[in-house]
Amino acid sequence: RINGDRLWAALMELAQIGATPKGGVKRLALTDLDKQGRDLVVGWGRDAGMSVTVDQIGNVFMRRDGANNALPPVMTGSHIDTQPTGGKFDGNYGVLAGLEVVRTLNDLKIKTEAPIEVAFWTNEEGSRFVPVMMGSGVFCGAFSLETAYAAKDTEGKTVGEELERIGYKGDQVPGDHPIGAYFETHIEQGPVLEDADKVIGVVPAVMGLSWYDCVVSGMEAHAGPTPMGLRKDALQVSTKIMQEVVAIANRYPPYGRGTVGMVQVFPNSRNVIPGEVKFSIDLRNVNDELLNTMHEEMLAFIDKTRSDTGLKISIERVSYYPPCPFHPECVDAVRNATAKLGYSTMDVVSGAGHDAIYAARLAPAGMIFVPCKDGISHNEIEDAKSEHLEAGCNVLLHAMLERARI
Amino acid sequence: RINGDRLWAALMELAQIGATPKGGVKRLALTDLDKQGRDLVVGWGRDAGMSVTVDQIGNVFMRRDGANNALPPVMTGSHIDTQPTGGKFDGNYGVLAGLEVVRTLNDLKIKTEAPIEVAFWTNEEGSRFVPVMMGSGVFCGAFSLETAYAAKDTEGKTVGEELERIGYKGDQVPGDHPIGAYFETHIEQGPVLEDADKVIGVVPAVMGLSWYDCVVSGMEAHAGPTPMGLRKDALQVSTKIMQEVVAIANRYPPYGRGTVGMVQVFPNSRNVIPGEVKFSIDLRNVNDELLNTMHEEMLAFIDKTRSDTGLKISIERVSYYPPCPFHPECVDAVRNATAKLGYSTMDVVSGAGHDAIYAARLAPAGMIFVPCKDGISHNEIEDAKSEHLEAGCNVLLHAMLERARI
Ligand SMILES: NC(=O)NCCC(=O)O
Ligand SMILES: NC(=O)NCCC(=O)O
Repeated sequence: RINGDRLWAALMELAQIGATPKGGVKRLALTDLDKQGRDLVVGWGRDAGMSVTVDQIGNVFMRRDGANNALPPVMTGSHIDTQPTGGKFDGNYGVLAGLEVVRTLNDLKIKTEAPIEVAFWTNEEGSRFVPVMMGSGVFCGAFSLETAYAAKDTEGKTVGEELERIGYKGDQVPGDHPIGAYFETHIEQGPVLEDADKVIGVVPAVMGLSWYDCVVSGMEAHAGPTPMGLRKDALQVSTKIMQEVVAIANRYPPYGRGTVGMVQVFPNSRNVIPGEVKFSIDLRNVNDELLNTMHEEMLAFIDKTRSDTGLKISIERVSYYPPCPFHPECVDAVRNATAKLGYSTMDVVSGAGHDAIYAARLAPAGMIFVPCKDGISHNEIEDAKSEHLEAGCNVLLHAMLERARI
Repeated sequence: RINGDRLWAALMELAQIGATPKGGVKRLALTDLDKQGRDLVVGWGRDAGMSVTVDQIGNVFMRRDGANNALPPVMTGSHIDTQPTGGKFDGNYGVLAGLEVVRTLNDLKIKTEAPIEVAFWTNEEGSRFVPVMMGSGVFCGAFSLETAYAAKDTEGKTVGEELERIGYKGDQVPGDHPIGAYFETHIEQGPVLEDADKVIGVVPAVMGLSWYDCVVSGMEAHAGPTPMGLRKDALQVSTKIMQEVVAIANRYPPYGRGTVGMVQVFPNSRNVIPGEVKFSIDLRNVNDELLNTMHEEMLAFIDKTRSDTGLKISIERVSYYPPCPFHPECVDAVRNATAKLGYSTMDVVSGAGHDAIYAARLAPAGMIFVPCKDGISHNEIEDAKSEHLEAGCNVLLHAMLERARI
């Protein structure tokens, strides 16, 4: 069993770096605060006897030797960068749970067969630099180091420059680092576990997602003198599509998701009929065929709306991640550990992307979810219970031990 | 008959002051450019032999004496301030048409019984300072001089300071100025005349309007992990209300209007279910009972939506103008003048508010509309045909002569 109080204390100490008045954390990737956070965690790793490697995209691997160091390490990890109005647990929990596993193994003087590694990946959040999940994406070859280095923040600073500046541009070629198995603990970021009153979510898969930008172009005109029949109201046409996004998701329960999160209206004046509306569409499903069906239904609805209304409607897919089923052996390792420890549990498909989906391209991978208050994350009020975090960390310990063998 | 070329030349010269690269005009109320515009028009008025009075809110009255100066003047006017991306004709046409009437009377050496006045009212557009139609509103007692003086622009400058600064804070007490009858020529700002291929719009009335701010509050949550059934999506609920605004207007043809022009979504992020949406509602009708019915139907729909969805929905009325029927004698004067001159014509209810609705509280009033290209105004591409402007000005001449008598 791990030490829940020590885990909690580490989380609270790391959360001091970039702490916000509302109780959250703002520690954007590759800022001075990120460097302070990285230095703190690396220091803890060294104190726990681990050796540290940094790769060229700034991913950090902290290693505890095994009895047989020729075996690929059993790795756990996540990220320590946060959203601009982020919380204390998203990502940070996954990294410090890994550290707590190592501290516990040290306390108990347990030697594993395979080495154990705790990783943290660069710029998972994607708030300062796109694309999201940058470090793990480069590591698994989803996009190139050059692409990542060239990414700019709003001030024009690049990932390459900023990595250099904070001293985390390492030598190792990304991906040139074997992984035997990968586990990631994370707060659920959704309400399912809390709603069902369960402590551990076994994660069989991560949903695939498709992101789109939609632009409806009508004709801006004065709200008073323009008769209803002569209008080309871009907002009214947009509302039909926005409702259909949700209707499509509702046709594919339980894992269909449809969200319009971002809307911009032009000229956005009280007495002007909107001439143009831009909005985002986010479709998700755990089944790629169903996700594709949702995609097709949305395009068909937009075609129909275009011909019904005569307005110009453009739709562009801006991101796509296929669903990521986790490896049965890793899922079983999590399930077995949970059963052994006697925690209440259920399967929870991850609706959000995580570094684990990229790690899963290179090695068997699995995830462990714990509840977070009201399902809220990416918010300064993000919260989680110490006993849940402790439970998730215990499951991680036993799942890793099953793979690494004593 | 008036001189159409001279009218056009005056419009083009005034449009130089604040001219924008896209062919529009930016001459916000009480700026240096407004002062230049005012000075130019006042200079033209004096050259045409008129005496000039300025009142305490900066309304300018240019007077051509009649044979019997004890009679209240027959007045015409509009405004010369513009929207930030305004056109050459909105308001400016009404003022310069009045000037052209006086120039024509001078050419023809016609002496009217009653004096003739050409007015321009301060800050009709309301873009720099609210409320809109400020000068005419103070003039008719709709709100106080103190309220108007205290109005601030985004930089914190007040109407009182700015009037003083540009030298247009006059002595006359607003409203202490008799009016025998008031006419206003204006571009239609809508597509009705152009659609019906008519030259003159006789304006029987201006629609009443109700403006509202609506706020729907749900719960922001991550777009991936949050199942459809556990969402409180403020945008989806808002789209129902937005559609109902238009449905209500469509239930009251031909003069029902319903528009949502302004929308703000929080936090407005692609993968976050909107937690709060604010939007404006603009309802209009020429019949006050029907406008009230529309108001009641909207409140009832919001109540129903609130209880159907459990979300918090607030609705606040922020402006209300009752419909303004114009005086039968002024409407007839416009109709008679149009018939005499042989222009194609139809009745067009004004959907937009004008200074004439405040003037109508003090004296018989009427309006004359001419077509504008594609019905577009409040836009740099606003356009009108010289022959239409000329026709409207001829109608103004004859309508004013009917009231002022020769
Ligand atoms: N965990 C997380 O918020 N990932 C960002 C991408 C997504 O929206 O799933
Ligand atoms: N003429 C004009 O645009 N007035 C502003 C108020 C309105 O929307 O009717």
